[in-house]
Amino acid sequence: MASDQQEHLVDQRQPEGQEQPAVAKMPVTAPSRYSSRVILKTILNRNDNGLGLAGERLVIGGWVKSSKELTKEEPVKTSDALVNAGTPTDFTCAEVIQSRIPFLRTIIKVFGGQGNNVHDKLHPFMAKLPQPKIVYLQISDGSCVQTLQIVVHSSLVPPSQIMFTGTCVLVEGILQQSSVKGKRVIELKAERILHVGTVDHAKYPLSRKRIPVDELRDHAHFRARTTTVASVMRIRNALSHATRTFFHNNRFLNVEVPIITATDSEGSSEKFYVTTLSGHQTKMKNPISMDDAASVTLRSVKASIAEKHRQVEELMRTGSNKEAVAAALQDIRKTDDLAHQLEARERLRADHANAKTNEPNVSNDFFPCETYSTVSGRLHLESYACALGNVYSFGPRFRAERSESKKSLPEMSMVELEMAFSQLEDAVNCATDVLKFLCAWVLEHCSEDLMFVSKRLDSTILDRLQSIAVGSFEKISYAEAINNLKKDTGRKFDVKIDHGIPLSEELQCYIADEIYKRPVIIYNYPKEHKPFYVRVNDDGKTAAAFDLIVPKVGTLIRGSQNEERFNMLESRIKELNLPKNQYEWYLDLRRHGTARTSGFSLVFDLLVLQATGLNDVRDVIPFPRSFGKACN
Amino acid sequence: MASDQQEHLVDQRQPEGQEQPAVAKMPVTAPSRYSSRVILKTILNRNDNGLGLAGERLVIGGWVKSSKELTKEEPVKTSDALVNAGTPTDFTCAEVIQSRIPFLRTIIKVFGGQGNNVHDKLHPFMAKLPQPKIVYLQISDGSCVQTLQIVVHSSLVPPSQIMFTGTCVLVEGILQQSSVKGKRVIELKAERILHVGTVDHAKYPLSRKRIPVDELRDHAHFRARTTTVASVMRIRNALSHATRTFFHNNRFLNVEVPIITATDSEGSSEKFYVTTLSGHQTKMKNPISMDDAASVTLRSVKASIAEKHRQVEELMRTGSNKEAVAAALQDIRKTDDLAHQLEARERLRADHANAKTNEPNVSNDFFPCETYSTVSGRLHLESYACALGNVYSFGPRFRAERSESKKSLPEMSMVELEMAFSQLEDAVNCATDVLKFLCAWVLEHCSEDLMFVSKRLDSTILDRLQSIAVGSFEKISYAEAINNLKKDTGRKFDVKIDHGIPLSEELQCYIADEIYKRPVIIYNYPKEHKPFYVRVNDDGKTAAAFDLIVPKVGTLIRGSQNEERFNMLESRIKELNLPKNQYEWYLDLRRHGTARTSGFSLVFDLLVLQATGLNDVRDVIPFPRSFGKACN
Repeated sequence: MASDQQEHLVDQRQPEGQEQPAVAKMPVTAPSRYSSRVILKTILNRNDNGLGLAGERLVIGGWVKSSKELTKEEPVKTSDALVNAGTPTDFTCAEVIQSRIPFLRTIIKVFGGQGNNVHDKLHPFMAKLPQPKIVYLQISDGSCVQTLQIVVHSSLVPPSQIMFTGTCVLVEGILQQSSVKGKRVIELKAERILHVGTVDHAKYPLSRKRIPVDELRDHAHFRARTTTVASVMRIRNALSHATRTFFHNNRFLNVEVPIITATDSEGSSEKFYVTTLSGHQTKMKNPISMDDAASVTLRSVKASIAEKHRQVEELMRTGSNKEAVAAALQDIRKTDDLAHQLEARERLRADHANAKTNEPNVSNDFFPCETYSTVSGRLHLESYACALGNVYSFGPRFRAERSESKKSLPEMSMVELEMAFSQLEDAVNCATDVLKFLCAWVLEHCSEDLMFVSKRLDSTILDRLQSIAVGSFEKISYAEAINNLKKDTGRKFDVKIDHGIPLSEELQCYIADEIYKRPVIIYNYPKEHKPFYVRVNDDGKTAAAFDLIVPKVGTLIRGSQNEERFNMLESRIKELNLPKNQYEWYLDLRRHGTARTSGFSLVFDLLVLQATGLNDVRDVIPFPRSFGKACN
Repeated sequence: MASDQQEHLVDQRQPEGQEQPAVAKMPVTAPSRYSSRVILKTILNRNDNGLGLAGERLVIGGWVKSSKELTKEEPVKTSDALVNAGTPTDFTCAEVIQSRIPFLRTIIKVFGGQGNNVHDKLHPFMAKLPQPKIVYLQISDGSCVQTLQIVVHSSLVPPSQIMFTGTCVLVEGILQQSSVKGKRVIELKAERILHVGTVDHAKYPLSRKRIPVDELRDHAHFRARTTTVASVMRIRNALSHATRTFFHNNRFLNVEVPIITATDSEGSSEKFYVTTLSGHQTKMKNPISMDDAASVTLRSVKASIAEKHRQVEELMRTGSNKEAVAAALQDIRKTDDLAHQLEARERLRADHANAKTNEPNVSNDFFPCETYSTVSGRLHLESYACALGNVYSFGPRFRAERSESKKSLPEMSMVELEMAFSQLEDAVNCATDVLKFLCAWVLEHCSEDLMFVSKRLDSTILDRLQSIAVGSFEKISYAEAINNLKKDTGRKFDVKIDHGIPLSEELQCYIADEIYKRPVIIYNYPKEHKPFYVRVNDDGKTAAAFDLIVPKVGTLIRGSQNEERFNMLESRIKELNLPKNQYEWYLDLRRHGTARTSGFSLVFDLLVLQATGLNDVRDVIPFPRSFGKACN
C-alpha cells in the first residue's frame, strides 16, 4: 500500500449494523473484521453450501491446494476488462506485459489483420502469444476442510504464477453457481487479483498430494497448509477451548504457574536448566580459577622446580659427586609431580565451588540458585487452591527425557488442577467428567474435521469418541489390576507379574486395550510408585493416587489426593532423600491452614491424539521438539 | 478417611437433577460437584444475599479471615448434642477430652452438687474448666469478596484451634438469619467440625490485617488468602477468560508456540538458555578433553621426560662427563616446558570446540544447537497464520533483563496474534477492539472485586476502565508524536527531543498521561527502532509498526505489519547482522506463498495492572520471578 495511505490511520470499517454506501453493494456475508476478505467457512458451511450467496461480490484469500487449466477459444476481453483487472503489485515487469498481451493482440488484429504470422512480423517478441486459458483453483484459507473453487481467466494473471500448490492469492470476484456439476455448488469468478505470493515449485516441500504425516514433521512451518494437519489443528483448538469452557462452567480459576522454578515437583532428575550463561560462557571460563593461597602454593612449587634445575646445573658445573646430582634430579621429579597434582586439585576445587547450589553464585548467573523449566505445576497450584478453592493451569511443561517415544516429548502441553476440600474420589470424578465433556464437545463442534480424519487417518475415531463420551469407565485398584494381569494367560510380558511391580505404560495399556476395552481408572498404588506429595493411605502401604488409561492412547491422566498432614509429608521428603529446603514453602502450606486437596494432570497432547486417531504426538504439536534434533 | 472407604471408589454423587433420599434433605444450593462443600459465592452473591436459604443444612469450607470470641453463660448442652457434635478427626487426644469436659461437668453436677469446688475435689485435673464460649468466625473460600460468618460453640472445638487468621475449617451446619444486626443477613450455625487445619500463629506471616501488597510479595504461596490478592487473581482470571472469548468469537485459532526455541525472534541478547547440563555438570566436566592426536602427543612428551630422567641417572651412574649430563638436564627442562604448553593449548581448544553453536555438540547437551526460552511467539505464529488465517497464542515469554522494573519481569504472560491478509490498520483496529472488549468485560463481570479494589487500591479504577471501554483513542504517527513533545515546553526530559530519537517508555507515557490523557496509538516508527521483521514503508525510512500506550500503565501493546517481501526481509536480516541460518525457515514463508500478515503482542500482566490499579507486576503475577532473587 502507498505510504500516503498509511500516513493517516483511519478506521474505515463501518460500525456493525450500518449500511455501506450504495456504490459498493453490501455483501450478505460480512468481511472478517480485520481483513477485507470473507472467511470461507461462513460461505461453505452454510446449510445451502453457499448457493444463496450467488451474485455477491466479495474478496477471498487463501492458498492453492490444487488447480487445473483449460485452454479455451473465447472472445478476447475488452480493454475495459483488462484495465479493471488492475495492476498486480507483486509481479515483475515481464509478467505485466504478458498480461497485457491479449489487449495488444486486439490492436494488432484490428490494424494488422488476422493470423499469427502478422503478429510475428510486427512484434517479434510476441512471437509466442499464449492461448487464453481458464484456470480453476481450489483455495483453502484454513477455516474449514472444504475448498472454494476460483475461476481465473489468464488475462488477469499468467497461470504459471498461480497454479502451483501453496501459492497465496487474494482475489476479488463474484460468487456464482458452480460451472462444473458435482459436489461443489458455488465458485468465485475472479475479477481482480489483489495479491499473489508465488511458490518456487521445485523447492516447495508440499508440492505433492497426500504427503504422509511423518514426512510432514520436517516442515513444521508449512504443514498446516495441508488439509490433514489443518484439521488436526482445528480439532486441537476446539479441545483447548472446550477444556477452558469446562473449568469456567465449574468455577475453576485459571492460575498461571511459573515456568522458571527452583522446585523440583517430582524429585526427578530429567530437567532442563535455565541459565543466562551460554555454553560459550560456561566453558570458556578459565577452569583454573584459583584462590590466592592455592595459587601461591603452586607458583612457589614451580619456582622451586626452576631453582632446583639451576642448582643441579651448578652441581654439575662445580663437579659435585654424582650421588648428590642424582638425589637432586630425583627431587626435581618429585616436585614436578607435586606441581601436577596441585594443578589438578585446583581445577577440581574451582569447579566444585562454582557448582554449589543455594549459595550466592559467583558465576554471574541470573538467579542465585539452580532454576529449571518446570516439570509440573501442581505444587504451586495447591498453594492457590488453599486460598481460592478450585484452580487450574494449562500450559507447557518440560521433561528432558532422552528416550524416543511417540507419546512423550521434551515440551508438552499439560492441563493441571487442584481442588481444596476434596479427596481422591472427587479427583477421579472430575477427571472422568472432563474427558467425557471433551469428547462430547469435539463430536458436536468438529463434525466436518472429524469426518475428514476418520476417512484419512482412522475410521474408528467417531465410535471411540462416542463410547468415551457416553460409556462407563472401569475402576479398579492396583491390587485388582495385578490380579487381572496374572490371571490373563493369553499374553507374555517382559516382567513377571507380581504385587509390588511398577505398572508400566505397556501393562496399563494392555489392561485398557485388551482386558477391559474401555477407559480404565487404576487407584491406590504402592506408595513407592508415586511422587512424594501423594497422601499415604491408612494401610501405610498404598498411596491415594490414580491413573486414567484410555485405549489406544495410554495414560492420559495422573492424579492424587495430596498429603495434608505435616508430619507425614516431612517424613516422605526425608525418606526419599529430597532436598528439604526446596520444599519449605510447600511444607508451610501444611503448617498453616492445611486443607485436604486433590488434583490431577492431563496430558493435553495425548488428548489430541485421542481425538484425531494419530499415533505420534509430533503430529499434533505445532512445533515439536525432539531429543538430539535441531529446532527452529 | 479409612482405607476401606478408599478401597472401592464409588461415585456417590447424584446425577444432576435427581433428588437425594429423604433422610438427608436436599439443599437449595447444590454442593460443588467435586467436594461436599457449597461455594460461598452461590450463597452470598444472591439477590437476597442468601436470606432465602435460611434453614438449609450444608457444608462450608474456607479459611479464617478474622474472629471474635464471646464468653456466655448458657445452659450446658445435652449429651445428645455433644455426641452429634461428632469426633473431629484432626485433634490430639487432649483436645478431644477438652471438648468432652462440658459433658463430664454435667455428670459431676448431677452426682456431686453445684459449684466448682466440688469439681476440684472430685477431679483435680479438671480444676480449671473452660467457660463455654461462642466463637464468630469470618470465613472466606476465595470465591468472592464477602465472608460468611460461622458461629461455633466451644463445645464443638476449642476456640484456640480455630480462631487464628489463616486457620482452615470445614464445617457442617444450618444457615440462619444473622444474629448480629448489620450488613450480614445470613450466617452458619456450626453443628459439626469436619476438619481443622491449624495455624502456628506466631510464625504465620499473614496474621496481621491489611498487610501492604509489597510485603505480601515475599509470601507468594500464602498471599492469595488475603482479600486484596484474591480479588486481583479473580480479576486476572476474568481477563484471561475474556481474552480467549474475544478470540473465539472472532474466529481466531489458538496455536501453542514453542517455549524452547533456537530462533531469536527479536535479535536481542537478553535470553535464558535452556540446557540439560547443570552448572555442576558444565564445570565439573574435565576441561582437558583431548582428541586422540593431541593426547598422544602430550602423553608421548611426558613419557619422553620420564625417559630423559632415567637417561640422566644412567649417565650419572656410569660416570659420563658433566657436559653430557648438563645438556641432558637442559633438554628435560625444555621438554617439560613443552608439556605444560601443550596442556594449556588443549584446554583452550577443548573449550572452544564445545562453545561452537549449530554444530554437533560434543558436550552431551540435549539439543545440538543453542536453545532459549522464547522471547516472542510471533514468528512461529506467522507460519500458522499463513495456513489457518487468524491465530493467537497466550502464554509465558522470557527476557533476561537484569534491570529492576515495576512493569517488566523475566517471565511474563503475553497474548500474541497474527492475521493473514491484513495490514497495519487491521492490527491497530484489532488491538483497539481487544482492549475495549476486555475493559467492558471486567466492568460487567467483576463488579464486586472492582468495588473492593477501588476502595482498597485505587479509587479511579472504575472511571478509567469505563473511559477506555467507550472512549476514543488518539492515533498519531511517530513524527507527530515528536512534534508534540517538542511543542510541549512544560516538561524537561533527559534527552533532547528530535526526530530520530527512540521514543522511550517515559516519553510514550508522557504523551498518553499528560498530553492526551487517554490511550494513544503511535505508528510508523523509524525502521531502526523496530525489529527486523517489520514491513518497511515505501518511504524506505519508516516501518509499519505501532505501540498502544495506556495512561498509568504504559505500553500495553506492540504490533506491526510484517515484511512479506523476500528480498526486503533478506536485506534487513543482513543489515542487522543477524545469523541468517536461524531464520531460514522464516524466510521460507516468503519464498513460498507469502501473504501480508499483521499482528501484535499484548503484555497481559500490564492489563491486570490496568484493571486493578496496582503499580507493580509482581503484585499481579501468582509467582513472580525477579533478577537476583531465589525463587520457589
